[in-house]
Amino acid sequence: MPQYTPPVRETRFVLDAVLGLDRYAGLPGFENATPDMVDAVLEEGGRFVAEVLFPLNLSGDQQGCTRHPDGSVTTPDGFKEAYAKFVEGGWCTLSAPTEFGGQGMPHVISTAFQEYMISANMAFAMYSGLAHGAVASLMTKGSPEQQAQYLPKMVSGEWGGTMNLTEPQCGTDLGLIKTKAEPQADGSYAITGTKIFISAGEHDLTDNIIHLVLAKTPGAPDSSKGISLFVVPKFLVNDDGSLGARNAVSCGSIEHKMGIHGNATCVLNYDGATGWLVGEEMKGLAAMFIMMNAARLGVGLQGVGIGEVAFQNAVQYAKDRRQGRALTGPAEPHEKADTLFVHPDVRRMLMESKAMVEGLRALCLWGGLLVDLEHGAATEEERQSASDLIGLLTPVIKGLGTDQGYAVATNAQQVYGGHGYIAEWGVEQYVRDARISMIYEGTNGVQAMDLVGRKLPQNGGRAVQAFFRLVAEECAAAKGDDRTADFAGRLEKALGELQAATMWFMANGMQNPNNVGAGAYSYMTLTGLVAVGLMWLRMAEAAVRLLDAGEGDAKFLEAKLVTARFYAERFLPDAGALRRKIEGGAESVMALDPEMFATV
Amino acid sequence: MPQYTPPVRETRFVLDAVLGLDRYAGLPGFENATPDMVDAVLEEGGRFVAEVLFPLNLSGDQQGCTRHPDGSVTTPDGFKEAYAKFVEGGWCTLSAPTEFGGQGMPHVISTAFQEYMISANMAFAMYSGLAHGAVASLMTKGSPEQQAQYLPKMVSGEWGGTMNLTEPQCGTDLGLIKTKAEPQADGSYAITGTKIFISAGEHDLTDNIIHLVLAKTPGAPDSSKGISLFVVPKFLVNDDGSLGARNAVSCGSIEHKMGIHGNATCVLNYDGATGWLVGEEMKGLAAMFIMMNAARLGVGLQGVGIGEVAFQNAVQYAKDRRQGRALTGPAEPHEKADTLFVHPDVRRMLMESKAMVEGLRALCLWGGLLVDLEHGAATEEERQSASDLIGLLTPVIKGLGTDQGYAVATNAQQVYGGHGYIAEWGVEQYVRDARISMIYEGTNGVQAMDLVGRKLPQNGGRAVQAFFRLVAEECAAAKGDDRTADFAGRLEKALGELQAATMWFMANGMQNPNNVGAGAYSYMTLTGLVAVGLMWLRMAEAAVRLLDAGEGDAKFLEAKLVTARFYAERFLPDAGALRRKIEGGAESVMALDPEMFATV
Repeated sequence: MPQYTPPVRETRFVLDAVLGLDRYAGLPGFENATPDMVDAVLEEGGRFVAEVLFPLNLSGDQQGCTRHPDGSVTTPDGFKEAYAKFVEGGWCTLSAPTEFGGQGMPHVISTAFQEYMISANMAFAMYSGLAHGAVASLMTKGSPEQQAQYLPKMVSGEWGGTMNLTEPQCGTDLGLIKTKAEPQADGSYAITGTKIFISAGEHDLTDNIIHLVLAKTPGAPDSSKGISLFVVPKFLVNDDGSLGARNAVSCGSIEHKMGIHGNATCVLNYDGATGWLVGEEMKGLAAMFIMMNAARLGVGLQGVGIGEVAFQNAVQYAKDRRQGRALTGPAEPHEKADTLFVHPDVRRMLMESKAMVEGLRALCLWGGLLVDLEHGAATEEERQSASDLIGLLTPVIKGLGTDQGYAVATNAQQVYGGHGYIAEWGVEQYVRDARISMIYEGTNGVQAMDLVGRKLPQNGGRAVQAFFRLVAEECAAAKGDDRTADFAGRLEKALGELQAATMWFMANGMQNPNNVGAGAYSYMTLTGLVAVGLMWLRMAEAAVRLLDAGEGDAKFLEAKLVTARFYAERFLPDAGALRRKIEGGAESVMALDPEMFATV
Repeated sequence: MPQYTPPVRETRFVLDAVLGLDRYAGLPGFENATPDMVDAVLEEGGRFVAEVLFPLNLSGDQQGCTRHPDGSVTTPDGFKEAYAKFVEGGWCTLSAPTEFGGQGMPHVISTAFQEYMISANMAFAMYSGLAHGAVASLMTKGSPEQQAQYLPKMVSGEWGGTMNLTEPQCGTDLGLIKTKAEPQADGSYAITGTKIFISAGEHDLTDNIIHLVLAKTPGAPDSSKGISLFVVPKFLVNDDGSLGARNAVSCGSIEHKMGIHGNATCVLNYDGATGWLVGEEMKGLAAMFIMMNAARLGVGLQGVGIGEVAFQNAVQYAKDRRQGRALTGPAEPHEKADTLFVHPDVRRMLMESKAMVEGLRALCLWGGLLVDLEHGAATEEERQSASDLIGLLTPVIKGLGTDQGYAVATNAQQVYGGHGYIAEWGVEQYVRDARISMIYEGTNGVQAMDLVGRKLPQNGGRAVQAFFRLVAEECAAAKGDDRTADFAGRLEKALGELQAATMWFMANGMQNPNNVGAGAYSYMTLTGLVAVGLMWLRMAEAAVRLLDAGEGDAKFLEAKLVTARFYAERFLPDAGALRRKIEGGAESVMALDPEMFATV
């Protein structure tokens, strides 16, 4: 049976020594993030997810969700009780604003907690995760009345929330949406259409579910410019806040899917359901993007969360399972065999996982801090700088984070050998669960296009130039210490490959945009390797600083230096190859006609 | 619903234009492989698997196998009837020797058919695949009486066969086997122990199942040197060939696993079952390796088979699904959106799949031919040379083939977006099915260690030197033609990286064997990229030759040249990165103590 221990020491190392959260104590929200409070969130939050949510992960996968003939959906055994405890413990409200009953904690802290929750039970974490997205949209675009009506109970977790974008004919290309919104005399709209792949679309965890739905009003352009956003509660809400009539939205079926079986992925049928416009008509896409950017960071974090729990279990298995002998001679001659741990190729897989999970954790927490700074930093310049960086890094965190989460889970499964393929060992579930993160909230290919097509050229390349400067400056500074100089030199080289690839796009993208599209994925990966490299540089510097000061656990800190070196030796060499792939351009990628892909 | 068309034109291109099968017409077995006969196998065999086996693939996955309270196991609906047709059509006997009722076809031809069968239904293909492995062992090591008793009905497919190696405490390290074989007065042995993960271990497809079982005789060394091989039929066989008593071997349970649900993966309990020694006592491992080497090539082929069917479906989806617009402006302005096919990142995924599947197919078919030449080439020198090459390439075909089969299936799923995660579309099954191939018959890490630890140093590096020479000579020759010169130059560069990595192992492996172990996986991948590169060089040369001769379909042949170029631009750049990873050595890989992998 799999196990999970929240990696609190790792999180603290990033928050304290790498991000230096104490430097931000004066910023809004951070006054709530006292050391004691952060300790409480990590320790007690970690305990809660490990004790209450994790035991439901494997059973939830095996049982799945059930749709009943009346259209109601029940979640796996234990989910409802666990959800009640989750709400009761206040775990739902960490970073929500105090005016709607939230605890007003910084985003970086709730990110740390979210990682633990994903590790413990990703399917479960999605129920509140989706609601958070809906809250973010209503908070920014909802009218004061809508906010007062929905937000307090959504923030508290009493009500759920969903995002309704996809339709059978329409995924990435939201201009193809067919769902209609007909204005009614009372100012509401009648929403009619079919939405698919709606996570947490119907379930028994909450009294009400607040659906945010993209639809088109009569006469609106039949493109993404004609889309409006509507709020459509499962149960209408009376003026006194009590629940009224059941709205005309129903779950037509739940999907049978590869993983995240504990989350109900629904087909939702809107049959003249009553909804209200959120924000302005035909500005729905912009409103939805608020939700989506936050959601993309959350999905990137799923790579870390699943990666961490898969890695932990692979480590334990490698320590327990005895098979074969060390190449350098028996490590434990009194035993009939050594543990898997002695085998260099097993250790390679564990080190790859360790280097990537810890690097991505630092990147996600930095991302969370950038979101806080984007809104709360002291000066406009700092807010702008944070906003540029997180805008640039969001598709990278989502794309590389989930690619690597899947790779780490696959590696963990490999460490188990045949047992990794058997359901009861639990590790194959991580591979199946991790797989969706590369697809939803915009496939990773869409992330790559967002990076090269939107984020790169924005404001004359301001964000990417700032990122390059940041990495270059930190590399230059780290060359002063023998213990970080080698790493800094290797990272600088990878940065050089990324800069060269960027120049190649500039020189070759105008004549043929396919040259950029064909290299987009490699570019996203390359940017991610440099960004994670920056995190390892910072972690190595923090380790050196603490070692010099005689603070902290020396073995833990020395392990950071070893892992940084491993990252440089085993991941950064890919930078040059990725650049060369990018420089291959579009010609061989796009040369073949459709019929040349026919088999016969 | 997924679709499958046997890629007969692709197979024919490799057999005729690349391998030049007509050159071998004088060799034993090849007299049976007349052009008409090969056509019949590919065309009719392809039709059989597409019409009979493929329709059972998705339903077989969804239904799985069932163990009944009496220990009997039923396969999914339709499998029994399909298996009867499979036997009746003679598809089981293609390359089996004529003396036992086989058709005596070359291995290269049965490899071509096996690929189709795997594409159509991998779980189904495993039933006969396992039996073939058992046949191979009995053919080499069985006594004439054992051969006469078992082989005719195993060859015909009337009886099944299995390989029993793994036990709960023992996977890769077969020295840990606990199953006992007690000699009986009548010359038989009483076999007692528990075997796990036994594919096709119990089922309703055949009247009898012939288990080949590794066990230890009394007093034998408690290591891999003490292992003997036994034949243990499910039903004892009377002297007249009729079935006798039920033997004391029973299915204790079937595993719930990630994929290949249509194949019954069994725990087999041997409770004093009657078995007979195969070959010499305590030489069981050598006998089992005969089976395993053949099986490893077959598993590598699973990467091609699953990759091909996943790729075909991704192509079809990309042609059908409309979403977004081409970066270069609407490709079909009259439609509401262009097809996925216009998007460069989608095309990248399709081209990666095409380049890898076609390259690996050529490598597997060449591997099949090398097996034929190993046994049947005219001169001892040719036989030796073929034996060296196939020995070297077997772990590469298994390791790279299955890694890339999984990557291609994952890419195909990605092309589908959200629909790829839903069971009814069928593509997620390919990812789950492909995953086991990286694990069984020796994990890919074990393949990598076999390559660097055994195949590389064997006979003073004779095999690897011959491989290097072969690649270098073919590159040099191809530089004479403008149309292949660029590719040859790039492949030569990749070969240089592989040679440098080999030198690094030689210089650094003696002082610390972990330096070789830590780089083994990268080395396997690098060797594989060069081997597939050699296949693309040969395919490009064949295309040029046919184009010059005005033979064949010019568009098909030009597509080969484009795909070769894509391979050079998008896969070969990894060679340099892999070399640098290898040169990182073992230090950072092995530096951390077990406790430094603890989370808290």
